[in-house]
Amino acid sequence: MKLYELVGKDKTQGFSPYVWRARMALAHKGLKVEMVPLTFSEIPELTGANAKTVPILEYDGGFITDSWDIAIFLEENFSDKPSLFGGNAGKAYANFFNFVSFYNLIVPLFQTLVYDIFNELNESDRDYFRASREARLGKSLEEAHENQLQNLDIFRKQLWPYNMTLKSQEFLSGDEPAYVDYIMYGLFQWAKGVSAIEIVNEDDQLYRWRAKMDDLYDGLGQVIKTRA
Amino acid sequence: MKLYELVGKDKTQGFSPYVWRARMALAHKGLKVEMVPLTFSEIPELTGANAKTVPILEYDGGFITDSWDIAIFLEENFSDKPSLFGGNAGKAYANFFNFVSFYNLIVPLFQTLVYDIFNELNESDRDYFRASREARLGKSLEEAHENQLQNLDIFRKQLWPYNMTLKSQEFLSGDEPAYVDYIMYGLFQWAKGVSAIEIVNEDDQLYRWRAKMDDLYDGLGQVIKTRA
Repeated sequence: MKLYELVGKDKTQGFSPYVWRARMALAHKGLKVEMVPLTFSEIPELTGANAKTVPILEYDGGFITDSWDIAIFLEENFSDKPSLFGGNAGKAYANFFNFVSFYNLIVPLFQTLVYDIFNELNESDRDYFRASREARLGKSLEEAHENQLQNLDIFRKQLWPYNMTLKSQEFLSGDEPAYVDYIMYGLFQWAKGVSAIEIVNEDDQLYRWRAKMDDLYDGLGQVIKTRA
Repeated sequence: MKLYELVGKDKTQGFSPYVWRARMALAHKGLKVEMVPLTFSEIPELTGANAKTVPILEYDGGFITDSWDIAIFLEENFSDKPSLFGGNAGKAYANFFNFVSFYNLIVPLFQTLVYDIFNELNESDRDYFRASREARLGKSLEEAHENQLQNLDIFRKQLWPYNMTLKSQEFLSGDEPAYVDYIMYGLFQWAKGVSAIEIVNEDDQLYRWRAKMDDLYDGLGQVIKTRA
C-alpha cells in the first residue's frame, strides 16, 4: 500500500492536513504503508490516479483519492481492525466534523498559514501556488501575511467548542482517539509543518490533547519537527 | 414523569430550545410525560428542584435539571429503549454538537430573537428578562431588534456545515433521528415559538430536514404554531 503525500523543499515534512487524516487512519488500523512524497506539480502527473490533490492511496493496483473516501475504504475493507468511526453515529459525527472544521477552522487557518506554506514549497510549485491561492484569497500572499495574527485570532476564537468538549472527554471521538481526532490533528500537523507559529494557548485543552495525539502509534506525528 | 417547561402568555407554546431537546428525547424513548408550564419567575419557586432554568424532569419524586443530564439519565435508565446517542462515539458527537451549536448558532439566534421572546412573555417576567438580557447583550432589547436581520444573517452564514452534512445523510445523527437532531430541532422550535421570522431558506437542506423532524412522534413538534 502506498500513500502519496504533499511535500515542499523537505521531503520528510509532509504537511497536508488531509494526508495526515489518512496517515493516522492507516496507523489506527495497524496497516503499514509506504509514503510517497510529491510536490504540487507532480500530483497530476501520477499515472492512473486522475487526481489533483493528495492524499492518494494506492492499493492493489487501484487508486483511492479524497481523504473521506480513503477513510470509508479503510473502515469497510478492514472491518476486523479497530473502527475509525465507532459505528453509524460515529460515522455521522465524522462527516459533520469534516464540514464544521473546514468551515470554522481550516478556512481561517489557511489564511494564517498561506504565506508560510508558500515559503516551504519547491521553487517549481511557487508560481502555481501563488496564482491559485491569490485568486482564492482575493489578495496577495504578502497581504494575507500582514494579517497573520488577526487571522490566527479568528481561528482561535473558534476553538471554544473544541476545548469545552475536551473538558469532559479525553478525545474528540470519546474515550479513545478515532477519525474525528485525526481530522483535527491534521490541522495541527499542517501548522507545525510549515510555520513556527503556535496556534493554541498552553492552557487550552487542545494543547494537552495534541500532546496525547503526538504520542500515538509510536509517536508517528512527531516526524514533523517543531520549528525554532 | 413530569417535564417542566418555559412558557410566555400562551401556555401551550413552550418555546425553550433546551426543553425541546428533552421533550423529543422522551418521545424517542417512547416515554409518556406530563408537561408543566412555568413562567421564568415561577421556575425558582418549584419546590425541591433548586433550579433557575428549565427543563426540569421530575421522576420518582426526584428532580433532574439541565438538558444534558436529562439525556444521560434517559439513556442510562431506559437502555432497553432506542438509544439517544448510538453508542460511545455518538455520545461524544452529542457532547461536541452541544457546544458547537451553542457557540455558532444559539448565540447569534438569541440576538435575532431576543426582542420577540420579550414580547411573548407574561407581564410578570418582563422586567427580569429585560434587565438580565440587556446586561448580557450590552445593549437594549430594542437596539438588538434593530439589528435583527443582520443577526439572522450571521446565524445563516453558520449553517453551511449543517446543510452540507444533510446532503449526504438523512439526519444529523445519521440514517435515523437521534439526540443531535433534537439539539438542532430545539433551535427551530424556539424561533417558531416566538417569531414569524423564517430562519432558513427554502432551498436549504435544513428546510427539508425540519419538515421530517416536524413529522416525528405523531407530529409532536407541530404543537408549536407557525405565526402569520
